[in-house]
Amino acid sequence: MPQNTARMLQTHPNPASVFDQGALAECIDACFECANVCSSCADACLGEHGHLMHLVHCIRLNLDCADVCGTTGRVLSRLTQPDLNVMQAQLQACLTACRACGDECERHARDMNMEHCAVCAESCRRCEAACARLLEGMGA
Amino acid sequence: MPQNTARMLQTHPNPASVFDQGALAECIDACFECANVCSSCADACLGEHGHLMHLVHCIRLNLDCADVCGTTGRVLSRLTQPDLNVMQAQLQACLTACRACGDECERHARDMNMEHCAVCAESCRRCEAACARLLEGMGA
Amino acid sequence: MPQNTARMLQTHPNPASVFDQGALAECIDACFECANVCSSCADACLGEHGHLMHLVHCIRLNLDCADVCGTTGRVLSRLTQPDLNVMQAQLQACLTACRACGDECERHARDMNMEHCAVCAESCRRCEAACARLLEGMGA
Amino acid sequence: MPQNTARMLQTHPNPASVFDQGALAECIDACFECANVCSSCADACLGEHGHLMHLVHCIRLNLDCADVCGTTGRVLSRLTQPDLNVMQAQLQACLTACRACGDECERHARDMNMEHCAVCAESCRRCEAACARLLEGMGA
Repeated sequence: MPQNTARMLQTHPNPASVFDQGALAECIDACFECANVCSSCADACLGEHGHLMHLVHCIRLNLDCADVCGTTGRVLSRLTQPDLNVMQAQLQACLTACRACGDECERHARDMNMEHCAVCAESCRRCEAACARLLEGMGA
Repeated sequence: MPQNTARMLQTHPNPASVFDQGALAECIDACFECANVCSSCADACLGEHGHLMHLVHCIRLNLDCADVCGTTGRVLSRLTQPDLNVMQAQLQACLTACRACGDECERHARDMNMEHCAVCAESCRRCEAACARLLEGMGA
Repeated sequence: MPQNTARMLQTHPNPASVFDQGALAECIDACFECANVCSSCADACLGEHGHLMHLVHCIRLNLDCADVCGTTGRVLSRLTQPDLNVMQAQLQACLTACRACGDECERHARDMNMEHCAVCAESCRRCEAACARLLEGMGA
Repeated sequence: MPQNTARMLQTHPNPASVFDQGALAECIDACFECANVCSSCADACLGEHGHLMHLVHCIRLNLDCADVCGTTGRVLSRLTQPDLNVMQAQLQACLTACRACGDECERHARDMNMEHCAVCAESCRRCEAACARLLEGMGA
């Protein structure tokens, strides 16, 4: 996790109590990284002139996943008076978006040797797993 | 629905087929309106000097709801090769965020006579209902 | 302007004083509409299978313009203790993004008869003009 | 810069040519970090019960800066067929938002010993400087 992002959690006046601190920090970090990587992957796919026709579904899922992960990261990093139902539902949406985008990117990494899709699939898998861990900790 | 937003759905090369067109347009409109109204309500609450201490939870839920609704509106208005699991999970998160924020704003509208919270509660209820209708149509 | 978005400005505890109220409301409305229409236009272009190769620059500008307009709409609709330098610089960025995207969409509307680009160009022009009016009112 | 975010720039089919690669990567990283830290700082300020009244302007600038930096990070990390006027204007807006928010946070770090504001001021200064370097490289 980038140093200052981690320090923000530590200097917050109301440190979170519902979640395991380490699992929460890891999930926030995974969400923001995945948001940025998915936004980049949509753009990299858009630049693949020879393969563009085959990357339409991938670009669409990248854009969805970028928005969903960014929103999830923001919701999770707000520690003041959280609503657990909102967090749980948004984590579930994030896990679902990361799975769909990770599956699609993995396919292009394997079948078309797309390196940016390989990196993106890795970020999606990491974020999917981090969401699953937080959801498990909530008893969901 | 603002005229040009509606026209974008009509001029799309692949008009949606899974959803009832009217229910989809209504939900996209409700999501974007709720996103903007919640962002304004967070700011209006922040300007309520005498009552600020009592509005902390409201501001927090407004910020969450603004982000969640904005992301849901974007995901729903992408008609090209959608992933229904992602849409369904994000709709569920949106319904949950709108319910939490609508409940909180309703309380402040009633107990503290906050007019901006009354307007915001109305937008949250409308968006919650629109999400519920789309989810129902998906058999969720 | 959608009814509840307009009512939020009216029920705010600190109504804006720097800007002409009508011009501000019109610009906020134009920013949010343009954000949503540009996000839709990126998706519609992505669905234009036969023309996709010629729409890469358009999709890219649509995505930029959607993000820039959405951020500008949020900054402008925060009335509590605003910073005029931030507003002015963000308005200038928004005007620039709308001009670039409007020019590109106009070209595709004319040369390829793309209806969604015609609608999008209209929203971009309206937002560009609304930003110019606010900037003029600031003496910028 | 988080490893996968850096790898996305390296695996892009059209690596940027206008900007110095190192300066660009640093600026994208600074924008996304500042966006996340500012969103956290708004929330941490909101949790400072005893000082809340004095943090209203800070929260407002944090929210603006979070949105502006997030949008700037996305625009900069799109390498496919960029529009330099849009990048330059958005960089200028980002520099302005970071300066305003950094000044305000610095004051609270010094006068009220707010640690989260000290961290946030650091991220704002780093992002302001990174934007200035890119703008300089563009001859702006």
